[in-house]
Amino acid sequence: MAGRGRLGLLAVTAQPTFGPVVGMVGGGQLARMTHEAASELGIRLRILAASPDDSAVQVCPDVSVGDPGSLADLRDFAASCDVLTFDHEHVPSAHLAGLESAGVCVRPGAAALRHAQDKLVMREKLAALGLPCPRYRPVQTLEEVREFAPAGRWPVVLKAVRGGYDGKGVWVCRTPGEAAEVLDAMRARGRTVIAEEHVPFRRELAALVARSPHGQGAAFPIVQTVQQDGICHEVLGPAPGLDPGDAARVQELALRIAAGLGVTGLLAVELFETADGLLVNELAMRPHNSGHWTIEGARTSQFEQHLRAVLDLPLGAPRLAAPQVAMANIFGAGPAAAAGGVYGRYTHVMAADPGAKIHLYGKQPRPGRKIGHVTVAGNAGDDMGALRARARRAASYLGSGREDGYGGDD
Amino acid sequence: MAGRGRLGLLAVTAQPTFGPVVGMVGGGQLARMTHEAASELGIRLRILAASPDDSAVQVCPDVSVGDPGSLADLRDFAASCDVLTFDHEHVPSAHLAGLESAGVCVRPGAAALRHAQDKLVMREKLAALGLPCPRYRPVQTLEEVREFAPAGRWPVVLKAVRGGYDGKGVWVCRTPGEAAEVLDAMRARGRTVIAEEHVPFRRELAALVARSPHGQGAAFPIVQTVQQDGICHEVLGPAPGLDPGDAARVQELALRIAAGLGVTGLLAVELFETADGLLVNELAMRPHNSGHWTIEGARTSQFEQHLRAVLDLPLGAPRLAAPQVAMANIFGAGPAAAAGGVYGRYTHVMAADPGAKIHLYGKQPRPGRKIGHVTVAGNAGDDMGALRARARRAASYLGSGREDGYGGDD
Repeated sequence: MAGRGRLGLLAVTAQPTFGPVVGMVGGGQLARMTHEAASELGIRLRILAASPDDSAVQVCPDVSVGDPGSLADLRDFAASCDVLTFDHEHVPSAHLAGLESAGVCVRPGAAALRHAQDKLVMREKLAALGLPCPRYRPVQTLEEVREFAPAGRWPVVLKAVRGGYDGKGVWVCRTPGEAAEVLDAMRARGRTVIAEEHVPFRRELAALVARSPHGQGAAFPIVQTVQQDGICHEVLGPAPGLDPGDAARVQELALRIAAGLGVTGLLAVELFETADGLLVNELAMRPHNSGHWTIEGARTSQFEQHLRAVLDLPLGAPRLAAPQVAMANIFGAGPAAAAGGVYGRYTHVMAADPGAKIHLYGKQPRPGRKIGHVTVAGNAGDDMGALRARARRAASYLGSGREDGYGGDD
Repeated sequence: MAGRGRLGLLAVTAQPTFGPVVGMVGGGQLARMTHEAASELGIRLRILAASPDDSAVQVCPDVSVGDPGSLADLRDFAASCDVLTFDHEHVPSAHLAGLESAGVCVRPGAAALRHAQDKLVMREKLAALGLPCPRYRPVQTLEEVREFAPAGRWPVVLKAVRGGYDGKGVWVCRTPGEAAEVLDAMRARGRTVIAEEHVPFRRELAALVARSPHGQGAAFPIVQTVQQDGICHEVLGPAPGLDPGDAARVQELALRIAAGLGVTGLLAVELFETADGLLVNELAMRPHNSGHWTIEGARTSQFEQHLRAVLDLPLGAPRLAAPQVAMANIFGAGPAAAAGGVYGRYTHVMAADPGAKIHLYGKQPRPGRKIGHVTVAGNAGDDMGALRARARRAASYLGSGREDGYGGDD
């Protein structure tokens, strides 16, 4: 690693020469990739990071370190921005409502964002809009869970109403005993739980749309996501074999949710495709893992689209830039997979697959942690299975603890 | 414009977690776009900027301000980097040779870079390699110019051997009187001049290749450039109507130059297409305006390719990501075109052409100054003329002093 030179490192000097300042709360990889898009557009992005080690802090010159749970920190940060947006859902909605009352431009607004922060609020709203959801009910006792899911209808899914992401806060309970354990743990933390039916889905789809304050909507092509334990591993775009009419209906569904909830910015809708149709699983109102493929695969990336939307600029064309795209997340392996080691593995992956596009987030690899992703864009005639295998292979090797190159059977 | 919040702005905290540090001398738009590519790859880029107002300083957290003409500043900067590279050709080659003697890894090296810094050295080397160039000779007196270009063979081109770019340092002299003026001015500044034949070209082409220290070469598709007064205005890729065999020969020519000159990193070769074949006009050893289209138009952008090359990583696939691409530079207009005004014009351009990809560099618009570019990627069946018109229209409006939207005849 290089040392520091004697020349003074420059404190932030960013001379805004151009338009409004977008403030993003959260300094993870979503903020990092948003900064890349902001840099291209000539738009100044400021970031409120929880830690100076955060992914986006390494690449953005205009960072404040503060607590996204502190109203004072949020207020100070917002004072230097023209619009406030987010790379996660962890800002308390009461704080956001307070900022809005004080005149801060918050996008998405507190009222919309609640639906991505509180699964019960989301389910009730979607039900009121007549949109297809899994059966659900709030539960406090095991008796209520048993009422919801009589014998023979297990497993049942329990979800913490708040604070979950990437499979955290979601439990597939196979027995009443497992459910009791979850209920006890959640009760001890004072957290509300809902039960949902366990949906026997064929596959999972994701719809990503943008909506701007003046009401324009734009939908990216529908993709298939491949999840393990609630964590996205792969994304295939457009969703293989999805009937164009069905794809258009999913886009319309997502646009309807965005309008119905008053979303400004991006809305990701995760869905189950079942034998009886589609069910909405989760919502997120920010750039989303299911949209990373758009950097190479769509005319406008989700990160640029989010910036356009929160700035109330006309939205960019969401259409495909490549006929087919496969994306695979890179997960850290054990301690052997030190960060320097990831770079060491670049040689092998780049030599083996010069067309694979690697994104690394500058995060310390820890087992199971998302540290980057690989996108492989293909032509119309290409086999999606082959594209997918290339993305998965590169991602899996980059995240591994190995240094020895990979052979034909990886 | 937003004020600064009370939260402390963070001085550089970039915690390198990953591989080597690339140091780029120069903080212009090429460094800015290289930072975008470095951020994607998870590679840390440090920049030596001449001014805190430079384009790249606005988006990169790891900047030193110093004089690229000062050996001391270069040495200090290089001490914090693993490899040194450039966004311009203005570093004195003696300094670079000195850094190399001191063990600094300089890519491209001083010996190669001289060919992009000194047009006479370049011509002599290309001639020695047997590569096609315009007729040339060094000239000190008007008599020598007259010998080189007898009556009837004017205009003649005079070029300052060093320091020229974007049409600066190049004069098309129509009369001996004009030539005498240039010679007097150059003599007064102690600068060497060469005369070159004025080539009646059909059009201009550009070849962009990368070469890595271990000798791997990769060539991007050949493009057509449209220049005015020696300044690139438009780039069309791949060059319309260029015979595939001819395109391959131009790629081979550029790869041969890269190998012959020992280039590490990118090499841009600007060529004249004439009735009698191709002639090499200029060389540059860095990301180049003729390659901006690769961000959207090629699987690997020129900026990522340059990083891969100077880091001696395997090169990325240079093949087309879109069947056809048109790029147009945005030039600042008069004082009316204040920077804020460029943002004001976003609404019109984005609404009129949601598929146009805008890049703004954060530079204060001054008349004739490149402040950004627009790329329009098209499908196989699209008319290149229409793509070109879209790119040119958006770029021209963004650079204009207007705020009123554009009509059908722009």
